[in-house]
Amino acid sequence: MAGLSMLWSARSIAVVGASGRAGSLGRLPVEYLLRYGYSGQILPINPTATEICGLRAYPSLAAAGPVDLALIMVGADKAVAAVAECAAHGVPVAILGASGFAEAGAPELQEQLLAARGGTRILGPNCIGAATLATGLVASFSPWFAGAATTLRADTNPLAGSEVVPGRAIVQGRHTNIRSRTAVALVSQSGALGFGAASLAVDRGLPLGWVVTTGNEADVTALEVLTELAAEPDCVGLLGYVESLRDGSALRRLASRGKPVALLVAGRSAAGRRAAASHTGALAGDDRVVDAALRQLGITRVADLDDLLDAGEAFAASARRTRSRPRSGRSRVADYAEPRSAGVVDTEEPPRVGPVRVAVVTTSGGSGILAADAVEAAGLVLAELAGDTREALAEIVPVFGSTENPIDVTASVMRDRTLVERCLSAVDRDPGVDAVVLCFCVLTGDDVTGIVDALRQVTKPVVVARTGAEHLAPAATAMLRALGVASFPTPARAVRALAATLRQAASTTIDADTAPEADGGTEPITDEWRLKEALRAAGVPVPRGRFLDSPADFDFERAVLKAVAPGLVHKTEAGGVILNVTKENVAEAFRKIATIGRVWAEEQVGGGVEVLVGISPSPLGRVLTIGAGGTLAELLDDVAIRLLPADPATMLEELKIARLLDGYRGKPALDTSALLDVVAGLVALTARWPADIAVELNPVLVRERGAVVLDAAAVREV
Amino acid sequence: MAGLSMLWSARSIAVVGASGRAGSLGRLPVEYLLRYGYSGQILPINPTATEICGLRAYPSLAAAGPVDLALIMVGADKAVAAVAECAAHGVPVAILGASGFAEAGAPELQEQLLAARGGTRILGPNCIGAATLATGLVASFSPWFAGAATTLRADTNPLAGSEVVPGRAIVQGRHTNIRSRTAVALVSQSGALGFGAASLAVDRGLPLGWVVTTGNEADVTALEVLTELAAEPDCVGLLGYVESLRDGSALRRLASRGKPVALLVAGRSAAGRRAAASHTGALAGDDRVVDAALRQLGITRVADLDDLLDAGEAFAASARRTRSRPRSGRSRVADYAEPRSAGVVDTEEPPRVGPVRVAVVTTSGGSGILAADAVEAAGLVLAELAGDTREALAEIVPVFGSTENPIDVTASVMRDRTLVERCLSAVDRDPGVDAVVLCFCVLTGDDVTGIVDALRQVTKPVVVARTGAEHLAPAATAMLRALGVASFPTPARAVRALAATLRQAASTTIDADTAPEADGGTEPITDEWRLKEALRAAGVPVPRGRFLDSPADFDFERAVLKAVAPGLVHKTEAGGVILNVTKENVAEAFRKIATIGRVWAEEQVGGGVEVLVGISPSPLGRVLTIGAGGTLAELLDDVAIRLLPADPATMLEELKIARLLDGYRGKPALDTSALLDVVAGLVALTARWPADIAVELNPVLVRERGAVVLDAAAVREV
Repeated sequence: MAGLSMLWSARSIAVVGASGRAGSLGRLPVEYLLRYGYSGQILPINPTATEICGLRAYPSLAAAGPVDLALIMVGADKAVAAVAECAAHGVPVAILGASGFAEAGAPELQEQLLAARGGTRILGPNCIGAATLATGLVASFSPWFAGAATTLRADTNPLAGSEVVPGRAIVQGRHTNIRSRTAVALVSQSGALGFGAASLAVDRGLPLGWVVTTGNEADVTALEVLTELAAEPDCVGLLGYVESLRDGSALRRLASRGKPVALLVAGRSAAGRRAAASHTGALAGDDRVVDAALRQLGITRVADLDDLLDAGEAFAASARRTRSRPRSGRSRVADYAEPRSAGVVDTEEPPRVGPVRVAVVTTSGGSGILAADAVEAAGLVLAELAGDTREALAEIVPVFGSTENPIDVTASVMRDRTLVERCLSAVDRDPGVDAVVLCFCVLTGDDVTGIVDALRQVTKPVVVARTGAEHLAPAATAMLRALGVASFPTPARAVRALAATLRQAASTTIDADTAPEADGGTEPITDEWRLKEALRAAGVPVPRGRFLDSPADFDFERAVLKAVAPGLVHKTEAGGVILNVTKENVAEAFRKIATIGRVWAEEQVGGGVEVLVGISPSPLGRVLTIGAGGTLAELLDDVAIRLLPADPATMLEELKIARLLDGYRGKPALDTSALLDVVAGLVALTARWPADIAVELNPVLVRERGAVVLDAAAVREV
Repeated sequence: MAGLSMLWSARSIAVVGASGRAGSLGRLPVEYLLRYGYSGQILPINPTATEICGLRAYPSLAAAGPVDLALIMVGADKAVAAVAECAAHGVPVAILGASGFAEAGAPELQEQLLAARGGTRILGPNCIGAATLATGLVASFSPWFAGAATTLRADTNPLAGSEVVPGRAIVQGRHTNIRSRTAVALVSQSGALGFGAASLAVDRGLPLGWVVTTGNEADVTALEVLTELAAEPDCVGLLGYVESLRDGSALRRLASRGKPVALLVAGRSAAGRRAAASHTGALAGDDRVVDAALRQLGITRVADLDDLLDAGEAFAASARRTRSRPRSGRSRVADYAEPRSAGVVDTEEPPRVGPVRVAVVTTSGGSGILAADAVEAAGLVLAELAGDTREALAEIVPVFGSTENPIDVTASVMRDRTLVERCLSAVDRDPGVDAVVLCFCVLTGDDVTGIVDALRQVTKPVVVARTGAEHLAPAATAMLRALGVASFPTPARAVRALAATLRQAASTTIDADTAPEADGGTEPITDEWRLKEALRAAGVPVPRGRFLDSPADFDFERAVLKAVAPGLVHKTEAGGVILNVTKENVAEAFRKIATIGRVWAEEQVGGGVEVLVGISPSPLGRVLTIGAGGTLAELLDDVAIRLLPADPATMLEELKIARLLDGYRGKPALDTSALLDVVAGLVALTARWPADIAVELNPVLVRERGAVVLDAAAVREV
């Protein structure tokens, strides 16, 4: 996989199909590499030309000598031969821009590419290549690089130059950026969208270091590139646009790298999923499983491109602060994503259980309310301030402000810089505060220095919402960025970006090697009665049952009779289930069931609340589902979903029926502990079953004492 | 109310408490009015100065002569006297910036303001004033106007100059705007946030004409100002930030003006609502009622400030298109907000029932998928293309694109302008398409003219998503804007903005005069049995019931016995309800109930599905609720909510239990028609009851034939 890093560290690039003709696609990459000052070898490959854009051209890769990276600019018809040439020449990575493969209904041509690739990794086809902004390694034909005003110039270049002392940023209008070696990376399955977003990122001054587009992903996937980029020491955050998430192991590997990740996963809606399927040829997985998986792995899922770039700002800022302060507030938020399943964190203190507690400090009441709304929407909570803190604030905040969180210090506080500093200091000291959101409206140039000075003292994670035109304080963004504080035009965007950085803090517990994969070592059991016997053997309560050879064998007070026959799946529809069988009516019931199959009798159990417990396959790994069961299952659509391994106790807390389990309307609480034992038993029983088996226990009857599995089914999903 | 327009049409402005001292707040408005070229009279009022900023100062309003608008810059302690002076002098409107009133725990001081105001309307206190950008009428002390680079200059000024021919916009960098007399207005309860957002709006080139902030709203409310601005002929759209929506009549009046409105209502979350309540002193209403009311009235509710300004862009563009094309696609989308209750629309064709059908045309597959996701999230649907359309597209779109919606024309189509035009033309002709979203990534300058030409032919509502740096096509935004096409950096933002303009198209049916208000003419009935008798009289089925004087009066097969006693509300908890009473056990049941009150016996009815029907008061007017009833009510939280008048049939479609009513798991369909009769009966019965009475029928048992009200309660809500 190391070869993939040639996408950003190649010292020689061959442009296969390079052309000298003005306006031709084959000329663009050569022009771009020259224009943006790529310092490695540029090797135009053209069967007839001897010179292209002033560079010596070669008739073949063999003639050009060693090649780290090949950018293949020929059409689909000649692509297979070009890839074969790369393979023969030992080129580690080839980028294939041509369209006309799987996305055009020609999967066989894509298969031929793979067959020809040998040891060469292929990026694409149907992608727009990759670019490393610091070094001018533009292996791409995106029109972005042709723009007259486009610049990857050093003074805006996040990878060039050296660290500046925070607060001493070089300011040069709104595009000006601080100098820093660290940057975030953007990887996009869509080529056009990827470079479009990259151009917006550079436009807003986001320290963007790498852009890679993966197109059809015949070979190399976006997750793989993101994981490889995560290994780059200067890469401090990863942004991805993906249209299908189908590889749970790759996702775990990415999360295990310990770098913050935000993903925009397209196809959230049914309409979008259909569009994505027709675009990529691959059906996207259940969106709720995607949601659950990303939350578990500490990866932020964003709703739009703006949010993706916002997360990048926050990642870059957070890394800068962390580097300048070895002990950040990390330990306090290590439990954000999945409190109870958090394992090892890099602190001696045990992680606090519960959501991150945010203090909002604002000069505008309105911004404070919008921030409070956003805090709740992001799954954070408003911190309850300590008495000390409120007393300290009461000395500073005027009577028409508020010393309650959100803390409305009012614009009048801005007139005295020491007051801003005292406010932030009081909040920062409060042990009940995990992170701070600072909101301003119409911040002007005069105010900026004081705020930067005040923020320098804050030790906890902090973001700024600054609602006002850039030109009112043109230095503010750069100065805050230099300090490691990201700023955003609205409170909600600031809060979401903060949440993205805190979410990652939990992912330190992820270990790719522990990712469980069913190994298929054990044959699955699909007969209901055998499945129940196996559950009983695994310690999971099931009703007492037996086969009846005649009605005389019946020894139940009240029982259910079920037909057992090979291939009989839909028992009820076939008339193969009879309820309320007693000694009085067993003869008649036995006669009916016996016409269908063997007669299985089972103690009839009532009362309690019906719960569904299931394990099912998904592209991202095996999924545990717990939810409302029985006849309510479909109607309520009340389920909690996790990739395995998972902590079922946290899942119960998400359910509406948790209220039934806890004792509803004065009824006694039910035995959730027994329910959790059922879940654990099912997980253990099926741990070594093949990955494509779905098992559903529905209903599991949860009672005041104990829980019992009334029905169980297992099917092989296709 | 006409006096309010002095906020933007005043020909003389008095600045009470004006000061010549550099850096003083009282100097700012005088400076601003001078700097931005206000052409009316500026009248500084100061007890001692004779000249301020080169203008003659006056010791009192009386000395200054006629005053259209007074901006009071004195502190809270002197505010009451200043307001009284305005009242005495007959000033129509006074703006009060001072803090220290209701928001500072001094409601009594705010009451004194009102007592002193006489015929003068008060904006504020605790606001930052108002500004009309075209005329330099800056009656505000916002630091925005002090910015060195701040300009309301004519060439970016939406109200100055004359209309340009579409496509011939004067382009002057990214801030340059087209010249037009029409603009949108922004009204904000929060002063700082309002001017912060306004500065962002001007920064992005949004044609913003008016900014008004309302602060504590002691007298004038944001809704009132929005309604007044809607009457301005040049105002083509209204944007509002509000922290409490408590006046349903004012909301209806605003909606009835026929101008598009987008509101950012803060306090969506519980945390935000608490913050808003402590900020404004008024408890915000149930957020779901706010949602329902805005949807009914055709007002777009946005989630953040970005979306608010995006809606403004779309409103401005849509108005421009509508003016240049008398017959827009309006009739096609007139049924968007509330299909069945739509009444009069300005077209001969009957409105089509169903959501707006959107065609997405994209040069990037990724943008298409994101647009499809956004279409579904916004409550629109992807159009199903006609065969003709797909055939026409197949001639243009390359094989690696898609002729299905989202239509991926691929970047290659951009190389031939006639192809873009043919694509859009085919989609525009399709009768199954109501609106078009056009998505580009990395649009460059060369492409813009062709796209503008192609868009000129499109007759249906259209928005553009352009994901790429501004500098790649610096003229694009202005040229599209001149054509009446709004453009946005992401597909999702484009789709949401489109939805905002279409939502308004439905509001033509709103008539403020038909707004129903309970008039209290009839005394409400709160006894259960009397309420049921009244329902029966109104044609609503209730179980047969009677009072029993002795067990011998019992003439039911199976009945419920209920105690009736003055003040007895919680019958069940008091042991005042006994089920399953028959001739066999009636004596015992009678004895028990008789110890509590009079004995009411009622036929016991079973079967069917339990539904809740309720009418309740809200700050916005009386609310009709239909939802899951009985024991499931609280658990499912499955309700549809509308302000009255409402169409109950559309409400049923929103419910999860609609599936139970339609016949669940093979069961027969239930009598929803009878349920609708129950709703109509309840609405009729309570039409003239006082507005603060809540009535709940729960459960209403809906059966295969008929529906019957099993329990009914009415309480006066406080």
